[in-house]
Amino acid sequence: MPEKKPLPLVLAFDVFGTVVDWRTSIIAQTTTFLDRIGRSDLGSAALTDDWRGRYLGTMKAYASSGRGFVPLDQKHREMLEEVLRERGIDLDAIGDDVLTEWSHSWRRLAPWPDSVEGLARLKRLAPIVTLSNGNVALMLELARYGGLPWDAILGAEVSRAYKPDPVSYIRTAEILGVPPAHVCLVAAHHSDLAAARKCGFATAFIARPTEYGGKRAPDADAKQDWDWSVDSLTQLADQMGA
Amino acid sequence: MPEKKPLPLVLAFDVFGTVVDWRTSIIAQTTTFLDRIGRSDLGSAALTDDWRGRYLGTMKAYASSGRGFVPLDQKHREMLEEVLRERGIDLDAIGDDVLTEWSHSWRRLAPWPDSVEGLARLKRLAPIVTLSNGNVALMLELARYGGLPWDAILGAEVSRAYKPDPVSYIRTAEILGVPPAHVCLVAAHHSDLAAARKCGFATAFIARPTEYGGKRAPDADAKQDWDWSVDSLTQLADQMGA
Repeated sequence: MPEKKPLPLVLAFDVFGTVVDWRTSIIAQTTTFLDRIGRSDLGSAALTDDWRGRYLGTMKAYASSGRGFVPLDQKHREMLEEVLRERGIDLDAIGDDVLTEWSHSWRRLAPWPDSVEGLARLKRLAPIVTLSNGNVALMLELARYGGLPWDAILGAEVSRAYKPDPVSYIRTAEILGVPPAHVCLVAAHHSDLAAARKCGFATAFIARPTEYGGKRAPDADAKQDWDWSVDSLTQLADQMGA
Repeated sequence: MPEKKPLPLVLAFDVFGTVVDWRTSIIAQTTTFLDRIGRSDLGSAALTDDWRGRYLGTMKAYASSGRGFVPLDQKHREMLEEVLRERGIDLDAIGDDVLTEWSHSWRRLAPWPDSVEGLARLKRLAPIVTLSNGNVALMLELARYGGLPWDAILGAEVSRAYKPDPVSYIRTAEILGVPPAHVCLVAAHHSDLAAARKCGFATAFIARPTEYGGKRAPDADAKQDWDWSVDSLTQLADQMGA
């Protein structure tokens, strides 16, 4: 870590995986829903990993897909339907309300143990905003669920582009009214940080080795020497002097 | 006040005048800037009222003006320049930095005495979001300045339309993922509430009799029988059972 790195004016956070442990929470909720439809045999961990796996590919290809922007809640619902349909599940029998509630599992994810304290400390240093692909309603409910004290909810829906499209980073800095170099992306994913750095952002990597249940992260090869590199948000607060 | 009015799912707040006392704060800051340029003779109250007066007309006419969306910070700067130029002030002599700082006075406004406590209590009841014409950077700095605990900053910049354009209300409800009837606009201005009601919002009026320094509000004639009508945000919290 450099000794005298200038502090960012704004801290912009990736959320899924960086601030909240999506996998543990989605597995737990999916277990309940599979029970309800009598299909526990499908395995909630396998179904969760399949669901999330589709997300990563979808986002990367989004800008070139020609499809207009849709909120992530809707993408979660579509991907859940795909995952279930491919397993021969009758969606009509499950019903619209249950499918909505299930896809809204992404609004109810537990923060990592250091997140709430780390964010509260970092918030004293600089504004803390979301820069997630999650839409506003999702992020708002997630923040209230986990006690995440955001100053503002920005990201895909506000910038009308999904990460890693450069528009999503650049528009976020514009909306904040500061040059990209004064915004630091805080993320557990090398690919996200690499895209932000290309747009001129400062970068802070948070290691979340259990995000994929111990499996290797899909973007492990994109590792670089980030401006900050820590094991938790409280450690980032320490290093930034918050 | 109806006894059993259903509670809104989301509370969306007008900010200037409703949550913060813009006039007292702008007069105080304008006094300092007029001192700095040696023109205290112009009178900070008169200049403040002229500055704000232009805002009201601009917003009403915005949708039909054909001009693309610009952040309110920029409008504040343009209107300040107009006000000064009409008084024969040499803007070049003042300089860009001072003009920016002066127009950013709108990011530093004191909350009314009941606002912080009222918002904290209402936030336990439902998400509290801004539905202001202020842009995100302005609202974010204002929230940190005054300790306003918003769940999300929405409004003109996120919906890409200035109130009272119906788009600004309807898009806000869409982004929140709820029908307009489940959003309550909280505002000190009858004209704002009237526009929100036409879009199907619930309405809560907060009386701020000193907003214009004791002068009659420009939209006093637009008064209606609102769903709630109170003298403070703490009183609204009382009536909503927060």
